[in-house]
Formats: sequence, structure tokens, C-alpha cells
Amino acid sequence: MRGKRSELIQNGGQGELALLDRIRRRTTRSASGGLRLGIGDDCAILRLKPGEELAVTTDLSIAGRHFRLEWHPPESVGHRTLARGLSDIASMGARPLAALLSLGLPKELTIARGRRHAWVDRFLDGFLALANQHRTPLAGGDLAESPMAVADIVLLGAVPRGKALLRSGARPGDVVCVTGALGGAAAGLELLQKLSGRSVSTMRNSKKREGLLAPHLRPQPRIAQGLWLRRRQAATAAIDLSDGLSTDLDHLCAESEVSAEIDTKAVPIYTGATLSQALHGGEDYELLFTARPNTTIPHGIAGVSVSTIGKIVKRRAGQPRVILVDASGRHSLPRAGWEHFS
Amino acid sequence: MRGKRSELIQNGGQGELALLDRIRRRTTRSASGGLRLGIGDDCAILRLKPGEELAVTTDLSIAGRHFRLEWHPPESVGHRTLARGLSDIASMGARPLAALLSLGLPKELTIARGRRHAWVDRFLDGFLALANQHRTPLAGGDLAESPMAVADIVLLGAVPRGKALLRSGARPGDVVCVTGALGGAAAGLELLQKLSGRSVSTMRNSKKREGLLAPHLRPQPRIAQGLWLRRRQAATAAIDLSDGLSTDLDHLCAESEVSAEIDTKAVPIYTGATLSQALHGGEDYELLFTARPNTTIPHGIAGVSVSTIGKIVKRRAGQPRVILVDASGRHSLPRAGWEHFS
Repeated sequence: MRGKRSELIQNGGQGELALLDRIRRRTTRSASGGLRLGIGDDCAILRLKPGEELAVTTDLSIAGRHFRLEWHPPESVGHRTLARGLSDIASMGARPLAALLSLGLPKELTIARGRRHAWVDRFLDGFLALANQHRTPLAGGDLAESPMAVADIVLLGAVPRGKALLRSGARPGDVVCVTGALGGAAAGLELLQKLSGRSVSTMRNSKKREGLLAPHLRPQPRIAQGLWLRRRQAATAAIDLSDGLSTDLDHLCAESEVSAEIDTKAVPIYTGATLSQALHGGEDYELLFTARPNTTIPHGIAGVSVSTIGKIVKRRAGQPRVILVDASGRHSLPRAGWEHFS
Repeated sequence: MRGKRSELIQNGGQGELALLDRIRRRTTRSASGGLRLGIGDDCAILRLKPGEELAVTTDLSIAGRHFRLEWHPPESVGHRTLARGLSDIASMGARPLAALLSLGLPKELTIARGRRHAWVDRFLDGFLALANQHRTPLAGGDLAESPMAVADIVLLGAVPRGKALLRSGARPGDVVCVTGALGGAAAGLELLQKLSGRSVSTMRNSKKREGLLAPHLRPQPRIAQGLWLRRRQAATAAIDLSDGLSTDLDHLCAESEVSAEIDTKAVPIYTGATLSQALHGGEDYELLFTARPNTTIPHGIAGVSVSTIGKIVKRRAGQPRVILVDASGRHSLPRAGWEHFS
């Protein structure tokens, strides 16, 4: 990797075609899995196995909205850009086939300065490390000069016909489950804001800090858990927690035309996070799913814990879609996750 | 359409979910062609016919780089955003299956002002009109608030396995052909710049102006022509003219490891454009393709003219990849189309 990076630097800042060539050389050209044709033509070409259908998603990441150049290490921006797309694939129970990446960047982010790697190369370090971990080749995309940094990820996945986990399958009586622990990304972001004046290397000196920053800087999409749920036909509905539990559970209930009751003390809270961060903080990228009450849900799937946090109930007109139950009674849980243009 | 638009306006500016709902109501929810699941879940789900593979492309359009809010009517920005993706699908000889759209917008572009429709609704008018023309449903995407307008289009198409038109198939002896006339988009852009102080309605009063602006404001992706070439197996290689003939022919020659000689007087020039605009102006979205010399190429395909403009020759080391031949002799044709970061 080092050797490759030095090579990239020598080619720094020579225009779009040179940058494209740098990216192309860093991606494998061999036809991997379903990818038949990658970077270098007008389209990428993908092949499905017989009986499969395609799951496709796209997610926009914009400097100043989804990340900050002054807060986030470039490797984290690359990782998070891809994680958003992979997490959507995970929530459908699909296996990732390939990614496409549209990058709009200010010119200075494409140029190496002395011994410092170009921002875009460090972005690709983070992006490709996660891509390799999930065997997801970068199959194409677009590059453009832009007054501000913007990255749009396209993720393509394969799933057996008619077997994708949808938001719309939850029925009254189902249990509501969640993978991992919640609120870590929101707590990490808060810490990152506080630390914004200091350098990343200072942050890394503290193991505790690193633990609190990890869910925000390097969230882990739950591909293995989504595949497990789909293969076992264990889930009736699923969604990934990108906007926060209160908002995403509301989406799932809306699509399923049901309501949900959440048991406050059953919500798994990431160490160092608050209940409010667990309920409303976005970007945890855990899976939220429902299951028939007689389905056995293990305490962990592929090394990640699973918690049952509530149940699906009948939707009643005029009633809130998500209700929080605690010692003091029943409270409506309004959507308080992230919403653009609000 | 009018009725639908009035409905949209009443819902203007109520946040991301309201905007998403406005878009969702404007797209057909019926499973059209290969689309099994559209807007409303984490991924769209698409199905291919037996023996087909998937072609996928993504293209970024950024305010100030690919369009200007003060020059381009919103309908044109929507049309052009989709046309870029459809044109890539056309160049592979694929049939469009579905589009996904990532939109980052300043909040004011999502709000209607009095009797004026919101920018985003007029953008969608242009986008959906072209989508309907090519029976391409909007299957999903992403919305985000952004300091500047940015649109990333994802186009998905289907093509019989191993039959896609690639850039890499040109061989010495092949003829070089192009659909339509070139330079119109560059000439239109130049006129648009000159007219930038005046209103669009003033421009529309002049039929001649309208004719010169059309290739830039509403380029027509050559889907029918790409399908014709692929079905007849008439082309050995193809690329769409997005960056300009000199740049795109260079790409095709590079991927095919050949050179090309272009006969200057055979290049079809759009009425009102210059030879330089025809050679280097981008965004015409015509198809450039090569064919075996014994293949009969008609003078028109699906109502669009076809011109033979040169031939493919052997690549010689140290020689330019694209050579222009005119009465005064042979000249190298350097890439002079659009290149970002240059």
C-alpha cells in the first residue's frame, strides 16, 4: 500500500484524467464476483446469478453537512461515504456486488503537498479499506472539480428474487430488535466537535477517546447480520439506523402501517452515550428489524449483539406511531433524528 | 401536470420528508419493466430478464461547473442531469431500466414563492418529462440540504450478456461514424452566456435562438440509435460525446489501442456552430462508433442522421492517437475537450 501511495503522489495534480488513472490503478481490474467490466468505459457491467435481483441505493455526503474537512480525517470521510451505501445493502439482506463513486472536489484536495498525501488519496485509503473488507470492488463513478467537497456513493447488491428484507413487512405482535449498541456515533460526533481545535494524533493517544470516536469515524455496516437474517428468514421487516431510532422506526412503522412500543430500559446504549443519543442520534448504522414473536432471535449474530427492545402493535388513527414505555408511563416518541430542509 | 404541480406548491418547504413525499407522488409506483420496488425503502429493487446483464453509470452535475442557476432554466438542469446518464446507457447499446437521483440543494430552491413554482419542482418537470419519454422510472435517490446545488444521476440499464458496445472493440480498418451534428451544445452555451443578462422568455421569442439553444438546453440521448447498433451488431466500439469529439475519440482509441484519422470536411457541423466547436465542444451527447468497413451503415437511424467521418488505423508509438486530415495535410488533434482539475 505504501509503495502504491508513493506512486500516486508523483502523479498528483495533473488533471482529471491523471486522477482517474490513479484511482483506476488502485482498484482491481479483475472481474470479481458479479463485476464484468469496471472503470474505463461509459458504464460498469454487472452480472447476477440466476434467480437473483438487484438492490441499488445512492447516498450523498456533502462537506459541512455530512462531514467537516476540519474535523474528519480524510480516511474517515472515505470510510463513512462507503459505509452509508453498504448499510442500505445490509438492511435489505443483500450481498454487495460493486460500488460507484461520484466525487466533486476542490482542486487543492487532489494535490499532494511535499510529504503530505493528497486528501483524495487518504479518502481512498479509507474507502478502499472498507471496500476490501466487504469484497466490494469500485466499479466506476465520476470526477468533477467543485467549490466544495461532495461524494455520492452508489451501492449495488444482489438478493434472491422476492426475498429482500423490506420496511413494509412488520405486523402487530412482532418483536422489535436492534443490532449492537446505539448512540455511539452521536456521542463520538459530540466529542469530535469538542476536540476540533486539537489534532487527530492527540486524540489517538487516548484509548478511551478512540473507543468513543470509533462508531462515528468508522461505523461498521452490518452486512453479515443482514445476510444472516435474510437467509434464516428470521426478520419480517428491516431498516438501517441512519437517521436515528426515533426517525427510522417511524419510517418502518409508516411503511408497514403499524405502530411500535419501545421499552426504554431495553434500549442498548453505547458506553459513554446518553439515552437521548441512543434514541435520536443518527449514523449508528445498526440494523433495526422486526420478527414474529415465535422466531428465536439469538443474543448475537456474527459477533454483534442483538437486543429485543419492544413490540409492534396495531396502528390507531390519531395515535403516535412510536411509543416509549418506561417506569413513569407511556410517552409518544416524536421523530427527532436528522431531517434536511427542516 | 398542472393539477399535480399546484398540489406540490401547497406542500412547499416543509422539510426533507415532505419534499420526498412530493417527489414520490410524482413518480409512478407501479412496477414498470424491471423495477420491482421504488422510492420508500433503503434500496430500489430491479429485475433483469434471463440472459441480461446490468449496465450502471453515475454522473455528477454541480452548480457553477455543469450548469448555472442564473443561466439555465430549472427544467433544463433536470433534463440535462438525466440526459447525461441516459447517454452513457445509449453508448453501451443498453435499454434503460430505472434512474436514481441524489439531490443536494440550498433550502430556498425547495420553496415556492407566491405563484412561482419551487426550483426543485421545475427541475423535476424537466427531469420527469425526459424520463417518461424514455420510460425510465425514478426508482430512488437521496435528498440533502447543501450550500450549493448538486445533482448526481444513477442510470441502470439492461443488455444481453456479453453484447454491450464497449470502447475497446475498434480495430484498424474500421470506419468512424457519428450520429447527428456536432458543436450545437457548445454554440448554444456560448449564446446562453451572451444572453445571460436577459430573461428566458425573451430568448424563446426567437425561433432561430431557440434552435441554437436546444442542443445545449435539451440534448437528446441516443437510446434508440444505441439499441439499433447493438441489435444489428453493426458497431465494433462506441462512446457518447460528452467531453467533445477530440477527447472522446482519444478515449475510444486508448481503450482499443488504435489510432484514428478524421476527415475534416466529413465532420457534420450543427447549423450555427463552428468547426472548432464540432471538434472540441462537449455535451452534444451524440454517439461516436466504429464499424467494420464491410458493414452497411445507413444514412440515418431512428430519425437521426449518421455520418462516416474517418477510419481507425494502427497505433504507432510516439504518434498522436487522433489525426485530422484536411486539404492542407495531416495534423494531430490534441484533446481539447473539457477536463476537470486541469
